[in-house]
Amino acid sequence: MPNSYNMEFNGVILEDTYAEGFPVWAARVIITAVTKEWAYKAATEATGFATSTIGCPCEAGIERFVPASETPDNRPGYAIMLCCGKKALKEQVLERIAECVLTAPTTAVFNGKAGSEEIIPVKLHFFGDGYESKVVVGGINCWSIPIMGGNFVVEEEVGAIKGVAGGNFLIMGDSQMSALIAAEAAVDAISCVPGTITPFPGGVVSSGSKVGSLKYKFMGASTNEKFCPTIREKVPETEIPEGVKAVYEIVIDGVSEAAVKEAMKVGVQAACRVPGVVKITAGNYGGNLGPFKFHLKDCI
Amino acid sequence: MPNSYNMEFNGVILEDTYAEGFPVWAARVIITAVTKEWAYKAATEATGFATSTIGCPCEAGIERFVPASETPDNRPGYAIMLCCGKKALKEQVLERIAECVLTAPTTAVFNGKAGSEEIIPVKLHFFGDGYESKVVVGGINCWSIPIMGGNFVVEEEVGAIKGVAGGNFLIMGDSQMSALIAAEAAVDAISCVPGTITPFPGGVVSSGSKVGSLKYKFMGASTNEKFCPTIREKVPETEIPEGVKAVYEIVIDGVSEAAVKEAMKVGVQAACRVPGVVKITAGNYGGNLGPFKFHLKDCI
Amino acid sequence: MPNSYNMEFNGVILEDTYAEGFPVWAARVIITAVTKEWAYKAATEATGFATSTIGCPCEAGIERFVPASETPDNRPGYAIMLCCGKKALKEQVLERIAECVLTAPTTAVFNGKAGSEEIIPVKLHFFGDGYESKVVVGGINCWSIPIMGGNFVVEEEVGAIKGVAGGNFLIMGDSQMSALIAAEAAVDAISCVPGTITPFPGGVVSSGSKVGSLKYKFMGASTNEKFCPTIREKVPETEIPEGVKAVYEIVIDGVSEAAVKEAMKVGVQAACRVPGVVKITAGNYGGNLGPFKFHLKDCI
Amino acid sequence: MPNSYNMEFNGVILEDTYAEGFPVWAARVIITAVTKEWAYKAATEATGFATSTIGCPCEAGIERFVPASETPDNRPGYAIMLCCGKKALKEQVLERIAECVLTAPTTAVFNGKAGSEEIIPVKLHFFGDGYESKVVVGGINCWSIPIMGGNFVVEEEVGAIKGVAGGNFLIMGDSQMSALIAAEAAVDAISCVPGTITPFPGGVVSSGSKVGSLKYKFMGASTNEKFCPTIREKVPETEIPEGVKAVYEIVIDGVSEAAVKEAMKVGVQAACRVPGVVKITAGNYGGNLGPFKFHLKDCI
Repeated sequence: MPNSYNMEFNGVILEDTYAEGFPVWAARVIITAVTKEWAYKAATEATGFATSTIGCPCEAGIERFVPASETPDNRPGYAIMLCCGKKALKEQVLERIAECVLTAPTTAVFNGKAGSEEIIPVKLHFFGDGYESKVVVGGINCWSIPIMGGNFVVEEEVGAIKGVAGGNFLIMGDSQMSALIAAEAAVDAISCVPGTITPFPGGVVSSGSKVGSLKYKFMGASTNEKFCPTIREKVPETEIPEGVKAVYEIVIDGVSEAAVKEAMKVGVQAACRVPGVVKITAGNYGGNLGPFKFHLKDCI
Repeated sequence: MPNSYNMEFNGVILEDTYAEGFPVWAARVIITAVTKEWAYKAATEATGFATSTIGCPCEAGIERFVPASETPDNRPGYAIMLCCGKKALKEQVLERIAECVLTAPTTAVFNGKAGSEEIIPVKLHFFGDGYESKVVVGGINCWSIPIMGGNFVVEEEVGAIKGVAGGNFLIMGDSQMSALIAAEAAVDAISCVPGTITPFPGGVVSSGSKVGSLKYKFMGASTNEKFCPTIREKVPETEIPEGVKAVYEIVIDGVSEAAVKEAMKVGVQAACRVPGVVKITAGNYGGNLGPFKFHLKDCI
Repeated sequence: MPNSYNMEFNGVILEDTYAEGFPVWAARVIITAVTKEWAYKAATEATGFATSTIGCPCEAGIERFVPASETPDNRPGYAIMLCCGKKALKEQVLERIAECVLTAPTTAVFNGKAGSEEIIPVKLHFFGDGYESKVVVGGINCWSIPIMGGNFVVEEEVGAIKGVAGGNFLIMGDSQMSALIAAEAAVDAISCVPGTITPFPGGVVSSGSKVGSLKYKFMGASTNEKFCPTIREKVPETEIPEGVKAVYEIVIDGVSEAAVKEAMKVGVQAACRVPGVVKITAGNYGGNLGPFKFHLKDCI
Repeated sequence: MPNSYNMEFNGVILEDTYAEGFPVWAARVIITAVTKEWAYKAATEATGFATSTIGCPCEAGIERFVPASETPDNRPGYAIMLCCGKKALKEQVLERIAECVLTAPTTAVFNGKAGSEEIIPVKLHFFGDGYESKVVVGGINCWSIPIMGGNFVVEEEVGAIKGVAGGNFLIMGDSQMSALIAAEAAVDAISCVPGTITPFPGGVVSSGSKVGSLKYKFMGASTNEKFCPTIREKVPETEIPEGVKAVYEIVIDGVSEAAVKEAMKVGVQAACRVPGVVKITAGNYGGNLGPFKFHLKDCI
């Protein structure tokens, strides 16, 4: 591939390739609470067990802190995003609000307005068993449901949009820790891009997979040996350059192609600023999986 | 109930009642990582969306920090506990390790030895697609699976035990914030009791429920109006004493009756030390739900 | 004072009084690092032991997170502010950068441009012992100093301005925890106001003082008994209304009168939104201490 | 130096050298609060600006979390340690308690009993201006001082001991991030050793210094060029092996020689378990500075 290693940013090679994104349904929910800390606890619980729809009910993450001046009830909050198929999204928005936010002290829930292509009815007010009442909070129609901790205020329609999943890039480091810190720096940067989340633990993927398995036919997915540094010598078609000790991937979901594109850009650049990063590449399926292409050359 | 208010601790009334616990299958998993921080991120992701088996796949929480001197690979770690039915537990242990820990940077997984009544096979080594190998770490047989970030070490059998769910007590405060901080103090104390978790957000339940609904027949559960302070005047059989502004519940799962009993004790006492707490009670179903009774009188 | 209790916000009484501010020299320093987490650790160390110039070398706090897109070296950072007299400020800016930031891993230091009324020379480059060199980072002239961890980049002039100290308000709660959580909510809100800090622990003051002592002549300051709820019955001129169990004060330093005014406003309103807050007042010395008056009536 | 590189741990070279410790006065203070979080905020404020006695008033750090079951008032707490000369220690214990703990919401202060070679009188009760009273908490004689937030309980004698400062080791990494994460892992491990602190930001020193300066005679200290990787080629007597990109130092203060020795051991071993660490060494002054020698050969 004589022309493929033709880009650099801050001395790091960017492979001339692209991440392949595909459509996903996305919803955003704003969780407020009496303090930033309690809003964070609820948001964390509500977005757990949500790294990949392969094995989790949905993909989810905290999008951003929302200051009190921007929330309907003027209390501090966090916006979370949930992404998956349309049917599962309806269930997950309901379940995660019901189990992880309604149950959390002092919280309220508002529509984060990811879009209005689909409106998800939450219908939590029936939990009030007749004691619920309609209230207007910050100009928004909500239900107020008596609970043990007081009244739980909830806007019961959450807008959803056909967003983009599968934005990604891979960070190759001259040491495991170079790649790890670069991944953290990338996640720090992406956390400032509205409309995006990095759903994996701490925003980072350590174990890339390929579809199926060469050896174990019953496995639907298995390790992507071409990107495993410790078996570089054993894999003839390894994609690991000499000297690379670890690869971490950042996976991005977003409300739009533009949001994911921006996240890719700031994430790649942040990773490239960390000493010891030697190469950035991205994952795709040859264009067969999804209609969105995020070229690394657009990241610099 | 002339004789029911006959106990006090630190000036707080303890109702003469009990929490009713019931059997649950419990497993403990130790997650280590290169730093305490990365182990925590993985543990947090793995125990999210896990407040109550009513709507979540399982109940889960971080049991405790495990110092490097006590882990098989001598790295810092966190012990997490997962609790639910036996069949669901097998699935959840596998899924949460596979999706939330295998994917997390630098992690390893070890059996936390909750018990050996049931052994859950994780069988993650097939993910290695033939590149996996057996290794001994800290005297323990593990698999080492090549992944992008390096090698993922995993002990593939996790012991489970028939533990106890449903330990609980309710904290009534003269203000919402008295009850809230008391709940946090209780959770702080319980976090030091081995073999127990408080699975709700921040360890606290804000919205207690009753089975079914008086008004909406299609609802399987609805607000427990007798414990809702804001409708105290509307509910003839309210359990809310005059002056109580909020009630928060602590729910405890544990590996044994003894562990839950100890957690109840330290939690109740911690709550009673917070100014503004006026009464502690507990929830039961008249002994019909479960065989374990945790009397508040044993908490002082 | 028949007309003094004539304001309310969200049902909370605001006393018709004002906070009295006075001039203070203020500097802002931007600390960047490889990750948000490491920038935070350095910023925390650099702003500790800095609650009040009565006993600390200066007053300091973290002003805000600065995203990578806004810092000169495109890495995540925190802006800290230091406030005290002009001479002490020069010393403190130097000492805190030298001892707490230069020593912290991966950090760089930039002028946060609080103002340019006074330019503080840091002159850390002499630490390089001749190995230092001039570099331009993000268009800014800096020094690059070889250290064990790599090269420490520092902009050596930090602008200072005559700002305002002593912005304050007092939160009175029907329980200690109502006042405490309200104080935390106020600090959360003020943390979003540019150009301000709340230098006390967690942003909150628990122990107000008066100048001198009635009983112990050798004491320069002692408890302000008129604002102590637990001795309300013993102090004839108590300022504690019946039913108030605790008072917490928020003290604000800012780069300008406008910044402190805005912080007062959002802080007071945030506190008033917390259930159980019954009254807000403010501290002044009858206008003898400082030229700035922040009236509570301007906060609503 | 044919025999100096004769040790290895986990494949990392340990130089056959030692850290040189010297006597320091050390005090321990236990800070409790209504929740773990508020105790932590006070402890953090009280231990800031305290990395090195070269430019800070003292060296200080959080020693450990103290569970409610072990504190005199049965609330959660943190033990902090302060280290410096005897006279300065008396001042610093008083000032830091008075400015950073008395002012912090809901806190209490107890003697952490580092030793009893010297007893530091805090005498905060005079702040009560006659309203203070003696109380017994957990069997301990304390003063209760009325403040705005309630009553501040303080044990007014804090024991001090002649401890050991200057425990240290240097971590050399094949990348900056290998050394950084190894330093963090070392600090994680040392944080579990009773009686020790790592006073620098995040526990890590990025900028080692030598006494004086070769070029600038007015400088009391300057960069230790022999340990600066970026100028390795310019410094004939460099101590940086080929391929080393960064060096981070861990500095340890402890209540005793044994405590520092144990901290050195667990810290060195933890660092050596991080991939990419190539060498560990330690700093000494040829035995001229202090009477304590902590040999790296005793760390494995």
